[in-house]
Amino acid sequence: MSLHAELKAALRKAVPTGYLDAPEDLRVYSYDMFARAEPEAVVLPESTEQAAEALALAERFETPVTPRGSGTSLTGGPTPVRGGLVLGTARMNKVLDLSRADRIARVQAGVITAQLQRAVLEQGLFYPPNPTSADYCTLGGNVATNAGGASGVKYGVTRDYLTGLTAVLPGGEILATGGRCMKDVAGYDITRLLCGSEGRLALITEASVRLLPKPEAVRAMSAYFTDLKATAEAVAAIMSSGYAPCTLELMDRAFLKAVKQAYDFDFPAEAQALLLIEVDGPEATLGGQMQAIARLCKEHGAFQTTVAADETERAALWQARRGGTAALVRQVSFMVSLDYAVPVSQLPAAVEGIGHIGRKHGLDVAVIAHAGDGNLHPMVIYDPSDAAQSAAFAAFDRDACNAVLELGGTLSGEHGIGLEKAAHLPRQLSPAFLRLAREIKRSFDPRDLLNPGKCESFCSNED
Amino acid sequence: MSLHAELKAALRKAVPTGYLDAPEDLRVYSYDMFARAEPEAVVLPESTEQAAEALALAERFETPVTPRGSGTSLTGGPTPVRGGLVLGTARMNKVLDLSRADRIARVQAGVITAQLQRAVLEQGLFYPPNPTSADYCTLGGNVATNAGGASGVKYGVTRDYLTGLTAVLPGGEILATGGRCMKDVAGYDITRLLCGSEGRLALITEASVRLLPKPEAVRAMSAYFTDLKATAEAVAAIMSSGYAPCTLELMDRAFLKAVKQAYDFDFPAEAQALLLIEVDGPEATLGGQMQAIARLCKEHGAFQTTVAADETERAALWQARRGGTAALVRQVSFMVSLDYAVPVSQLPAAVEGIGHIGRKHGLDVAVIAHAGDGNLHPMVIYDPSDAAQSAAFAAFDRDACNAVLELGGTLSGEHGIGLEKAAHLPRQLSPAFLRLAREIKRSFDPRDLLNPGKCESFCSNED
Repeated sequence: MSLHAELKAALRKAVPTGYLDAPEDLRVYSYDMFARAEPEAVVLPESTEQAAEALALAERFETPVTPRGSGTSLTGGPTPVRGGLVLGTARMNKVLDLSRADRIARVQAGVITAQLQRAVLEQGLFYPPNPTSADYCTLGGNVATNAGGASGVKYGVTRDYLTGLTAVLPGGEILATGGRCMKDVAGYDITRLLCGSEGRLALITEASVRLLPKPEAVRAMSAYFTDLKATAEAVAAIMSSGYAPCTLELMDRAFLKAVKQAYDFDFPAEAQALLLIEVDGPEATLGGQMQAIARLCKEHGAFQTTVAADETERAALWQARRGGTAALVRQVSFMVSLDYAVPVSQLPAAVEGIGHIGRKHGLDVAVIAHAGDGNLHPMVIYDPSDAAQSAAFAAFDRDACNAVLELGGTLSGEHGIGLEKAAHLPRQLSPAFLRLAREIKRSFDPRDLLNPGKCESFCSNED
Repeated sequence: MSLHAELKAALRKAVPTGYLDAPEDLRVYSYDMFARAEPEAVVLPESTEQAAEALALAERFETPVTPRGSGTSLTGGPTPVRGGLVLGTARMNKVLDLSRADRIARVQAGVITAQLQRAVLEQGLFYPPNPTSADYCTLGGNVATNAGGASGVKYGVTRDYLTGLTAVLPGGEILATGGRCMKDVAGYDITRLLCGSEGRLALITEASVRLLPKPEAVRAMSAYFTDLKATAEAVAAIMSSGYAPCTLELMDRAFLKAVKQAYDFDFPAEAQALLLIEVDGPEATLGGQMQAIARLCKEHGAFQTTVAADETERAALWQARRGGTAALVRQVSFMVSLDYAVPVSQLPAAVEGIGHIGRKHGLDVAVIAHAGDGNLHPMVIYDPSDAAQSAAFAAFDRDACNAVLELGGTLSGEHGIGLEKAAHLPRQLSPAFLRLAREIKRSFDPRDLLNPGKCESFCSNED
């Protein structure tokens, strides 16, 4: 398949330095971490106006457009399953404004999250959302998926920091929402309707985010447990206490083993799980909080708690957490990283249930979790070319979804629905919700040209 | 006008203890703090199911329904301008669940905000949103308007605490959104689309909100200034510093004079403005923060800063802030409380501009502000029965809106649009935004039966 020649010529003219359709380019832009589908061309606009021209042309030629940040999605979200264009934001990569006076940053969608975090820190400010892929992912992708990460337990998610967006509607009209005010209730909250809409309602090209003062200090601690469920019980106890850790990450033994093989990292032989716990705030308050949290861990079975002595020890813990997934991927034939969330009091039941379901279907499952907000990521290892193992994974997926929903949880805490969870969506959302979702989609994109074939579009004929 | 007899009978049956249509009842439910319009009947359901029956009946008889909490709106939001039913939430007043383990409260829409705040505090937890009317207003109203208040400067607004809603759609279908997970990205964020939608998309009947650990301590300070603009400059300086006050309230001299007449409260003769400043957190950290903030105030012209010695002194400052508006209302013939927000760096220009516009049109204007988040409330005193004064107010309103928008501000920080700002809305929101707003409204309420005649419906024929 290839684009209409007239569209191709017009796109080359509209985005002169950012039109790609060589086979190797199409291959490069065909996948995320979950799925694969080739576009017919790739456009990389440098501005909202160029993006608007591209979307206007796409509509004229009835051509689908799939927005793409860095492609770090784990759900197939940025894969062009209906062909057409991939519209990448990589060249819209400028921090447009960083105001210490207003505690606001305005950035283009292609800015890398860590780039913003660093620029903000230099001003003595703090942009809290911190997806594990912060070094690679884009702010636009974070907005499109309402990305969270480890800091969510104290600081919430991307949604909580947005004050305004610039976006392009299918057909090329430019939409501005919100602005740079901390409070703004003029009109429906289209800012947050676009946040988490997975590129199906509009192409986000700019975002304004509010910033916090930089916490004075941060301190990290490791706590090792001999039992995974007890670890989750410690998490629940910490969260129902009066303490507010800014990090509360759980890693199970299978994950730690992968880390040990890949990095200069070791862990106690009897450990079944590690909690990485951080508190931040005024320096003088951290020691007392750490002691109290260590005590709660010990009451729930931790056999070793160690406060990181310095930034090097802290960085080693984070390298384990951040690098572990990549280490695991390199060591196994194939792995799927799943994403569920439950109320934190249900975390012990959830980790126990996931372990049980893995054993039932004969699958190796490593578990990590942004445990403090009940967001867990089982990583299922299997060989997709083996029919029996694929069937076992499908059964695991079904049973795990059921277990999570029975615990009052959600099918996705932060990765989104994309392709991966689309077929499961009606198990969580009612017919009334899905009907409204489709009507909202139609309001923004009546011809279904923007990121088609994902999310609620799977359920189009259900009610 | 009165309801169809069959509808009347059916409503009496559906909501047996909560159907009112005596003339005195219709009068009582005819007004908020801004406007007045009589309904044909009032229904006060006790449950989501009763509310759903009422909305189903209303649709069958093509009868408008205007949701109402406590009627503390300042914009005409809950006034039934097209007649029909007022649906009050006063009898849906139960805290359904308060989980310390999950840091979640689930409440019916008619729960009074202060009632929830107190129940939560008893568990050692904290529900931050704190509209000035917290003692009277309802959680459902807070959600419908995305209420803010004094705590917004540190803790954000109602929207930031919602994890899920139960609502009734026009026609009576029950919609559940979200749940009790801290992270949840399954489906579009209809939770936040309903928040701030001013009762035009669905009738909110239940809300789940996340809770924080209770701050260990809070400390209050008063700072008096001889110049209003300098006061706003102090606010901007505090907000661009590394400090995060949880209260940063500005009151001007006109407001303080009203307070002095009404309460046992005095202020220095030379004071043109008062800042009420609070910090909260670990006890040991508060003194240092207060000293630093006092220093910033003095650098910007404060001639007196006093830390409240105890809870009694703190309560006196809050009585001034909370009771002052009522005091002013009692002392003048008529007053309109307006609501704008600007980026905090523009607060000095905004207070100066508002003062200038008031003088230009010969109107007395008192100014209070949730200054730390740039949210200001000019209170304009005039006689609406005097044609010249009414014209002066209209001119003030137009000029003030222009001034705020030119400063990058918004027409409403927290009161909402309702009737009051509906005609101004196209000056802030683009035709594209308003078209999407109307299409979203149609998706939820195709017959325009829910809170008709407000907000974007004013702009129906504009693009």
